[in-house]
Amino acid sequence: MLRYRGIIFDIDGVLKRGSQPIPGAAETVNMLRGLGVRIIFLSNLSTKSREEYVEILRNRIGIDISPEELVLATSATADYVAKHCKTKKVYYVGHKGLRRELEKAGLIIVDDPEEAEFLVVGSPFDERGYVTEENRWKFTGAIRALLLAKAKFVAVNPDKLFPGPDGKPIPGTGTFVGAITAATGVQPVFIGKPSIEIFKIALEKLGVRPEEAVMVGDQVDIDIIPAKKLGMTTVLVLTGLTKKEDLEKLNVEKRRMIDYVFDSVRDVIKLFRREPWD
Amino acid sequence: MLRYRGIIFDIDGVLKRGSQPIPGAAETVNMLRGLGVRIIFLSNLSTKSREEYVEILRNRIGIDISPEELVLATSATADYVAKHCKTKKVYYVGHKGLRRELEKAGLIIVDDPEEAEFLVVGSPFDERGYVTEENRWKFTGAIRALLLAKAKFVAVNPDKLFPGPDGKPIPGTGTFVGAITAATGVQPVFIGKPSIEIFKIALEKLGVRPEEAVMVGDQVDIDIIPAKKLGMTTVLVLTGLTKKEDLEKLNVEKRRMIDYVFDSVRDVIKLFRREPWD
Repeated sequence: MLRYRGIIFDIDGVLKRGSQPIPGAAETVNMLRGLGVRIIFLSNLSTKSREEYVEILRNRIGIDISPEELVLATSATADYVAKHCKTKKVYYVGHKGLRRELEKAGLIIVDDPEEAEFLVVGSPFDERGYVTEENRWKFTGAIRALLLAKAKFVAVNPDKLFPGPDGKPIPGTGTFVGAITAATGVQPVFIGKPSIEIFKIALEKLGVRPEEAVMVGDQVDIDIIPAKKLGMTTVLVLTGLTKKEDLEKLNVEKRRMIDYVFDSVRDVIKLFRREPWD
Repeated sequence: MLRYRGIIFDIDGVLKRGSQPIPGAAETVNMLRGLGVRIIFLSNLSTKSREEYVEILRNRIGIDISPEELVLATSATADYVAKHCKTKKVYYVGHKGLRRELEKAGLIIVDDPEEAEFLVVGSPFDERGYVTEENRWKFTGAIRALLLAKAKFVAVNPDKLFPGPDGKPIPGTGTFVGAITAATGVQPVFIGKPSIEIFKIALEKLGVRPEEAVMVGDQVDIDIIPAKKLGMTTVLVLTGLTKKEDLEKLNVEKRRMIDYVFDSVRDVIKLFRREPWD
């Protein structure tokens, strides 16, 4: 018997860094598959659909996964809203990838914010930091959905800043949310990490109980703490944003949330090896 | 001798309502001019230059004033920044009217946010609630000015929402500020009402001491309180957003800030009549 039946992998900093795969990533995934471990890949991406991202992972990173194994902030948001929205009518802000996931979940995109039961917000900014053409009116639309239609407010993730192509900051979903909350006083439900909502959705897809599942991530606040709160076993890898020296600065409470610290994803396999006495 | 040597008029709700003049407005202004009273007209407008607004007041409202008698949030901001900015280099967000006022005050508009000593923020939205074409990158630019150049942050006014042409809300400067503060943690200095900065600049232009000046406005929080704090005599008129029944709901402290309540601007002349025993 394996100690764990399922595993959730954060992608950036765990399986890849930028567009470079992390050595041993694909190999580890394949070994786990060979052992019959259920796998979910998790990302806070707010702009792409699962199909689009699967293509990117396959072609650029060399990791071959199916859309069903992938949970993105976009798809998790679509699942969450589909579960709670009675009329199916949503007004959305963001990119086509979010729109596709919402439609795939059976939701109807309305152009008039006053018809919306839910306001669903992703990033209105493109990868250079411009408000995209189709999002130029969405500040107004989002405000009207909340104030005039009393729509329920859901945001794909709380991420405020990203590094742009020049390495300098560009705004994300959380920056747009800041504008809308300032104007209306309404706070959204966030779905993406560090909200536990996306972990709940990932666990549901994984089909195993939290005690039977491992979360592998590179950030304590964003990956480890919410997974631990749900009862998962947590693995921090040092190939991403957290370095060995950062661990010493963590307070005891946070340190206790991390069950294992591994140099890289390659070591994860240790948790799944059958010991001779098993 | 007159009891007061100068007067500041709020414009909307006092001299005009939308594009309609309030009866007696032009007449009152002319009478005060005849008495030799110094006059400043004050508006929180964040999109227009004084020249543009003087045209509108003359052609649409029938009030004839000179740009020198007008203090707008745009021009007051330009005055404030010109006084504090050593390098003269500013990165700005907003409309051409703000740009014109900044340039007229001797400031240099830089396109690269990293060259800016000041970040000056007006509304990036047009009158229908779209982010204007030239402001599509300004969320990113503003964030970079603050985070990379450590620019000082000044906002034209804190107004978050306005009624659009259809009477429904559209976002203003304060909504943009909400986004930038969420992303960076930096709060601006606001110049427009209810900040006292714009009143200080108006008094300076008026050239009289606060005790010699009257403020006429239609909103307690925005017009009356900051003027009273500076020591002016305050007049609330009931032709704008505040109605008679609203006065009863005011707490004692706020009620005490209002020296006179008049039905309309027409009654202001009472404060300037020479009494027979003078």
